[in-house]
Amino acid sequence: MTALPTRGAALADSLLRPRSIAIVGASDDPGKNSGRPLRFLRQAGFAGRLYPVNPRRTEVQGERAWPSLAALPEVPEHVYVLTPTETVPETVAECARLGVKVVSVLASGFSEAGPEGAAREHALRQLARETGIRILGPSSLGVINPRNRMVLTGNAAFAEPDVPAGRIFVASHSGSMIGALVSRGRARGVGFAGLVSVGNEVDLSVGEICAATLDDPDIEGYVLFLESLHHGAALRSFALEAARRGKPVVAYKLGRSAAAAEMAATHTGALAGEDDIADAFLKDCGVARVGILEALMECQPLAARLPLRADRPAPHRVGVVTTTGGGAAMAVDQLGIRGIDAQPASAKTLAKFAAAGIAVAPGRVLDLTLAGTKYDTMKAALEIMLAAPEFDLVLAVVGSSARMQPQLAVKPIIDCAASAKPLAAMIVPEAPQAIAQLTAANVPCFRSPEACADVIAAVFARRSPAASAAVAAAPARGAAATLSEAQAYELFDRVGVPHAPSVLAAIDGEAPRQLPFGYPVAVKVCSAAIPHKTEVGGVVLGVADRDQLQAALATLRANLAQRAPGIAAGQALIQPMCEGLGEVLVGYKVDADAGPIVMLAAGGVWAEVMRDRSIRLAPVSVAAARDMIGELRSLKTLAGLRGRQRGDLEALARAISALSQLALRPELGVAEAEINPLLVLPEGQGVLAVDALVLAS
Amino acid sequence: MTALPTRGAALADSLLRPRSIAIVGASDDPGKNSGRPLRFLRQAGFAGRLYPVNPRRTEVQGERAWPSLAALPEVPEHVYVLTPTETVPETVAECARLGVKVVSVLASGFSEAGPEGAAREHALRQLARETGIRILGPSSLGVINPRNRMVLTGNAAFAEPDVPAGRIFVASHSGSMIGALVSRGRARGVGFAGLVSVGNEVDLSVGEICAATLDDPDIEGYVLFLESLHHGAALRSFALEAARRGKPVVAYKLGRSAAAAEMAATHTGALAGEDDIADAFLKDCGVARVGILEALMECQPLAARLPLRADRPAPHRVGVVTTTGGGAAMAVDQLGIRGIDAQPASAKTLAKFAAAGIAVAPGRVLDLTLAGTKYDTMKAALEIMLAAPEFDLVLAVVGSSARMQPQLAVKPIIDCAASAKPLAAMIVPEAPQAIAQLTAANVPCFRSPEACADVIAAVFARRSPAASAAVAAAPARGAAATLSEAQAYELFDRVGVPHAPSVLAAIDGEAPRQLPFGYPVAVKVCSAAIPHKTEVGGVVLGVADRDQLQAALATLRANLAQRAPGIAAGQALIQPMCEGLGEVLVGYKVDADAGPIVMLAAGGVWAEVMRDRSIRLAPVSVAAARDMIGELRSLKTLAGLRGRQRGDLEALARAISALSQLALRPELGVAEAEINPLLVLPEGQGVLAVDALVLAS
Repeated sequence: MTALPTRGAALADSLLRPRSIAIVGASDDPGKNSGRPLRFLRQAGFAGRLYPVNPRRTEVQGERAWPSLAALPEVPEHVYVLTPTETVPETVAECARLGVKVVSVLASGFSEAGPEGAAREHALRQLARETGIRILGPSSLGVINPRNRMVLTGNAAFAEPDVPAGRIFVASHSGSMIGALVSRGRARGVGFAGLVSVGNEVDLSVGEICAATLDDPDIEGYVLFLESLHHGAALRSFALEAARRGKPVVAYKLGRSAAAAEMAATHTGALAGEDDIADAFLKDCGVARVGILEALMECQPLAARLPLRADRPAPHRVGVVTTTGGGAAMAVDQLGIRGIDAQPASAKTLAKFAAAGIAVAPGRVLDLTLAGTKYDTMKAALEIMLAAPEFDLVLAVVGSSARMQPQLAVKPIIDCAASAKPLAAMIVPEAPQAIAQLTAANVPCFRSPEACADVIAAVFARRSPAASAAVAAAPARGAAATLSEAQAYELFDRVGVPHAPSVLAAIDGEAPRQLPFGYPVAVKVCSAAIPHKTEVGGVVLGVADRDQLQAALATLRANLAQRAPGIAAGQALIQPMCEGLGEVLVGYKVDADAGPIVMLAAGGVWAEVMRDRSIRLAPVSVAAARDMIGELRSLKTLAGLRGRQRGDLEALARAISALSQLALRPELGVAEAEINPLLVLPEGQGVLAVDALVLAS
Repeated sequence: MTALPTRGAALADSLLRPRSIAIVGASDDPGKNSGRPLRFLRQAGFAGRLYPVNPRRTEVQGERAWPSLAALPEVPEHVYVLTPTETVPETVAECARLGVKVVSVLASGFSEAGPEGAAREHALRQLARETGIRILGPSSLGVINPRNRMVLTGNAAFAEPDVPAGRIFVASHSGSMIGALVSRGRARGVGFAGLVSVGNEVDLSVGEICAATLDDPDIEGYVLFLESLHHGAALRSFALEAARRGKPVVAYKLGRSAAAAEMAATHTGALAGEDDIADAFLKDCGVARVGILEALMECQPLAARLPLRADRPAPHRVGVVTTTGGGAAMAVDQLGIRGIDAQPASAKTLAKFAAAGIAVAPGRVLDLTLAGTKYDTMKAALEIMLAAPEFDLVLAVVGSSARMQPQLAVKPIIDCAASAKPLAAMIVPEAPQAIAQLTAANVPCFRSPEACADVIAAVFARRSPAASAAVAAAPARGAAATLSEAQAYELFDRVGVPHAPSVLAAIDGEAPRQLPFGYPVAVKVCSAAIPHKTEVGGVVLGVADRDQLQAALATLRANLAQRAPGIAAGQALIQPMCEGLGEVLVGYKVDADAGPIVMLAAGGVWAEVMRDRSIRLAPVSVAAARDMIGELRSLKTLAGLRGRQRGDLEALARAISALSQLALRPELGVAEAEINPLLVLPEGQGVLAVDALVLAS
């Protein structure tokens, strides 16, 4: 039986609002993983029809058990399979035969478990492709929808009744984290419109699941807990549509630290570690990536208040008002660490404070300690700041009074929350009542300076996805072929990346009598079969005249005979010796998960030891390339630092943008292109690629 | 009247356990700042004698008020002055005349408030010096000692009765933070043996106050909230003694971000920003500096379990066991960001798991998901790991079960906590009961992956203060005089820092006929009056022979006449042109707060744009200097990276150590010494200073 796969709103219905559910392998023991889903569904009062399936019992947990899926009085819309790994493919196949829409799989032991597991995973993929059945998992701890009391999960965290309902939808690679998020949400006053443990994404991915819910008017935002960036295309397409609809997406992604281990590599692929690419990907998709777990719970209201704008972050100036100098200093410090400087008040704003009779100490923060903690004082201060044009966001940091007397400095925040300008609060003491009041009033509020700054920085760092973001399909990653340096330059001519002039000469022939440029020159073996020339002695530098050129060709010939025997390398590329004010590495790569990316990094030895680089999804505009240049600390040396000569950073921006356009030209078939080095000449004189490595797919 | 100042245990008594207290300016209104101390003391049931002093009332808050300090029936041991700024000096003077031991001052408006304020502050300092009275503040929100119900504070946070009592002593520059710490401690199950708001430290400093309590057997550790590092000597001397006694000191210090603004400077003083120096200072004093507020509350138990050893951090290998893969991955990730890699189990340890019948997935973490969350499983797993020699610390990360069923995976942690090897726990869901049980059992435990990793990293980063840490008194910072480059080299000869050979020549004389080294040479103006030679055209490089040398002297003469007229600069220093494999900056400085420090930084332009450097309190051993070299990413290029020639890093370590010995030689009178650059020659060939700037005090 074949059917069109269930997608979109229909998928969301079968996944989150099925009229009937069968639980295959439901245990009689309510304490076991396989007993919990039935128990939790009954305990929650799930209103749909529910069928425990267990061939070895006529009854489980006091209700009728069915011997098989085929024996049920109807085809269940959603089936949760709790049986052991080996039985899963057959059970899923049966679901497909019967016409089940969605099957969720608890078992693990698929692609992570050797060839047998991989075969099982392949079988599932094939079933999904051939029959149209949709598969959640494997390794899915289930689906929770508090709105219809669907608690279809074995996660022990759901033993507590009444999952807090709200307007946030959660998709998580980790099944245990959905339990942690619910308990933390409960304590924090954050509720959910659904939680899905997506597991190994053999079919349904984070992106497709979330996209299916975009029409749900109860869902106002998304929280993602990611272990990887697989199925990046689906995630991106969901994120773009969510951005268009103003539904914020917040993500916590594991793997920040692994990248640190890759510091010593040179190649674009390795240099741009997996997590760096993911970070660029999420930012470019308009996703707020937080780095602190609590921020994942606290980010949504601020993200909703600060919609995405333009194709780069607008200036974001934070004004801080406080009843506690020490507490505000912590917030300012944490913001500063993340590159966000608290904005001092203008003279005009200070005059308004004076006119209102509110004493404030001068400084980066409007400190109301002298004025005293009173409702009227805080209210007036907030009104002045919310009207002040020098602030884009006002942060109120409240001290001890928040705990026992929220009416003094917390209530005025709530009373000002309807302002056009976003207003957020950080509470320094433990003050659950104040936090609850602020949260109920939908005021972005934070319990720690770290989460406060992390959220503000993550929300500010988002970029509105470019309208032209419909990137051409990445070339298939087949057997990649290397281009010779000369072929690479031909490609650069087509996309508009400047390179040093060059001529080719036969390695075993006569040195050319005339060159279109002067000596000294560099002589390099030019062969697609020898991507790493220096390793075989294939480069001679500083060749001063024709005699030396002839000798250099002989040297290349001898070196290749010895160090690359059997490799046909008939040609040498001759180039003038060029020098720039500085050099950089510019790389392009079609990442398997994220799609095409472009990277700018410090050149030479520094690329290896310093993590000084910028990554974006390709293509990038010249303006975006300028932003990338601004992110490299080492390029400050080419921007006129301390009276130094300025490099042609405009030409660099044009070259980065030009190389990134490969993303729009799949017909060129480029999987990876690396210019290392690209010389940056003095201002007005451009940039020059003097070496290049291109991989065609 | 003059007396010896109250110090040590006697100071602690008068500060924290006075038999009598007078409150000057006690208000009748219990809601006012000046009414709260009396109210809180009565509410708490302070057992000592209490005297409200208010000349305008016979009664405040229903009890007898005294018209003046002189009218009291006894000399109070401790006086809290709540009256306005202007009256403070006279009131403190009266306290001194009467023989009061300690006076605490609430008012602000001293050195931060212009010349009048500075005069008031000077008066207080003089009173303390001349009469021996000890002054807390100004800007002190008071003193709390839960053990004797002394709640002498105007901080509204203490309206709640029963400050949680415990074994941690808090000293804070910020008065509002003591309230925040108490409320957060209450929620976290952390109690206090005392809290002092030290304010502006006109007399009593954080260091002296804490040192005075070191004999108190109820105090097991210290928590410091620091806004600056003033009175560094007292802080260091306290920290060293606390380390000797095994009482951990944990600090949160504001100001991390301010340093970022100083990136573009070159001088040792500015390059090593205030916060970088503070960081080195705290580490070298054995203080655990945390970066996350919650970690300040959670650090103490782990710091107590991991005593300081050796003069450098021992290898610290963390083994992780978990019931939640996603939760453990967060902890591992946060540890990795901080440079701590979770240690995989050895084959032997894995065999023990297999023998015990516990299924674990392979990887960096021992994941018990497959084995299931059971008491016996977790207990056996912990016992195996605590016995495994590859781990120095075991971290158990517990998932959803911790919330409702702590008996499953939390109780076994408590039951194993008496092990010789430290055991810590991170709880992924919101689980206050589990946290309370672990805290009561004194198990280091954490509510977030960030605080968990921050604490572990902070505790690991401490260094046991060197036994020879009794640094010679820093030279007084008088009018500093610059040495000429030639004088600087003479100094280097005395301490053993190698430098390039050089000869002096009169600028307006004949070029020397013979040089003790070959051409080419560098010719530089040599004058104490011209510290920045290049700025006046005082350097000529690449001088190839005697004729050019004569011309170079003429060039210097002409440049100086034009760009430094009136400055007597009679001599030029001639040096061979030297080249190294790389260059670094080595600096020494007597910091006003931290004392002598030594810094190693990337040389040349990189020093300005990259924050690549290492700072230690001086002097340092050659071994410590090797550690500093290991901390610079850029020096990897001199350590044989990718087959590059190795630089003489051993000679560099000796040179750093040699320069740092200036700290032990106050008779040389050096306030600052900077070698920039110090050339690093190939391995075995040493290092060479080729420029130097020394400031004598």
